[in-house]
Amino acid sequence: MPMIIVGEKINTSRKFIAQAVERKDARAIQGVARAQADAGAHYIDVNAGTFLGKEAEYLSWLVETVQAAVDRPLCLDSPDPRAIENALDVHKGEAMINSISLEKERYDALLPVVAGRPCKVVALCMARTSMPTSAQERIDVAAELIEGLTGAGVKPDNIFVDPLVQPVSVDVRMGPAILDAIAGVMTRFPGVQTICGLSNISFGLPLRRQINRHFLVLAMARGLSAAILDPTDSELMASLLTAEMLLGQDEYCSAFIEAYEQGLLAINR
Amino acid sequence: MPMIIVGEKINTSRKFIAQAVERKDARAIQGVARAQADAGAHYIDVNAGTFLGKEAEYLSWLVETVQAAVDRPLCLDSPDPRAIENALDVHKGEAMINSISLEKERYDALLPVVAGRPCKVVALCMARTSMPTSAQERIDVAAELIEGLTGAGVKPDNIFVDPLVQPVSVDVRMGPAILDAIAGVMTRFPGVQTICGLSNISFGLPLRRQINRHFLVLAMARGLSAAILDPTDSELMASLLTAEMLLGQDEYCSAFIEAYEQGLLAINR
Repeated sequence: MPMIIVGEKINTSRKFIAQAVERKDARAIQGVARAQADAGAHYIDVNAGTFLGKEAEYLSWLVETVQAAVDRPLCLDSPDPRAIENALDVHKGEAMINSISLEKERYDALLPVVAGRPCKVVALCMARTSMPTSAQERIDVAAELIEGLTGAGVKPDNIFVDPLVQPVSVDVRMGPAILDAIAGVMTRFPGVQTICGLSNISFGLPLRRQINRHFLVLAMARGLSAAILDPTDSELMASLLTAEMLLGQDEYCSAFIEAYEQGLLAINR
Repeated sequence: MPMIIVGEKINTSRKFIAQAVERKDARAIQGVARAQADAGAHYIDVNAGTFLGKEAEYLSWLVETVQAAVDRPLCLDSPDPRAIENALDVHKGEAMINSISLEKERYDALLPVVAGRPCKVVALCMARTSMPTSAQERIDVAAELIEGLTGAGVKPDNIFVDPLVQPVSVDVRMGPAILDAIAGVMTRFPGVQTICGLSNISFGLPLRRQINRHFLVLAMARGLSAAILDPTDSELMASLLTAEMLLGQDEYCSAFIEAYEQGLLAINR
């Protein structure tokens, strides 16, 4: 199966987006949404997390604004269950909810929300009170989340486990721990999917885009099903297409060759 | 463990090398050997396979010529057991023999050679009369070769299984078959190593260096221990260093940061 791409750019941690949201500049937001959809995003992530107290209101505005412009489901990205519920009320189609975790308040509030309607849900490998370090800790949290979600009626293939990407600059063992967690989840929980963001991995290091791109390829080799990324980054997408071909997901190499002929693949000098 | 790098450039299928060998131009050959050693090669591959009838003589000359210039063991690359034996007679240190396979004549002649002295040996996943297609076929051939080699006294960590890389342009299932074979061998035969060349994977496609580089990263994610490649390809080596860091093989990211500071890592525009 080709990778599921979640476009990450509509996030108020980016100054351009924060200003557009504050001004309710629908055209600016819709331009970013369209560019990501055109570049191959299957979901458009919306995140208004920097606006404390106004997050719920702004997130719902983002949902309506983006869906007025592009025919894509959204990834509703918030740690706040109330913001997610409000956003779901105005969302058309089957949203992806990002995310549930074992943190008690979040878990208790979100479980009935995701169990009550058709949607995808990101299961973030955050334990009750701590961040995981090893692959095994991540898989243990995933197992508990999967058990809770499927017990509440969520189908396994609607669950996307996020191993929680942490920087290798802080601890070089994070790389193999995350990759082994992806492989472990894909092997032990058939049908369940995996997802992650890329940029945390390279925090504190130079050449971050290059590191993120390599991390994506390594994660794909271990079975990653979805990624939250910038689909307008042509070098990243070239890596993704190249890896998909080498993983046998591009019959007759036709997507690769077509992209090449359209001039979309040149990474290098 | 960081990747073991076998420098592939001294191969008479390259016109520059063939001409230098014919002229017995030691300086030209030694220049290519030194450049690869300086770029990080642990072994220097020597191959005179295009010279039918003279291969054994030329291979031995290459061994003496290269080892007069660089302090590295060589990878003696020939399907001809006699050429390998002659080359071993003049080789200093512990050579890598490339390769033994299940083809009967080659197997019977090489087994006593590699069993009788300390050396590394590449076990190529070529069956008696056919090329493998699936991962399972590769692993079956590997199992038989490993059994024969260890039975003859070769230590597992002196065995490098080569899954036999075939082009994805011919059959897109070759990519996952090779990658799954690498992972399968590393899991099922503890201590045994894996090795492969890169360039066959991209035969018949555009952007071959880019494809080869992605294949290396994917193979590293599955546990590949060694690669036959061009260590003077700076973009390939940048990918290798980046992947090693993300696989937890670069403590404190220090090799990556040092290479960055030396200007060795920039892949992109």
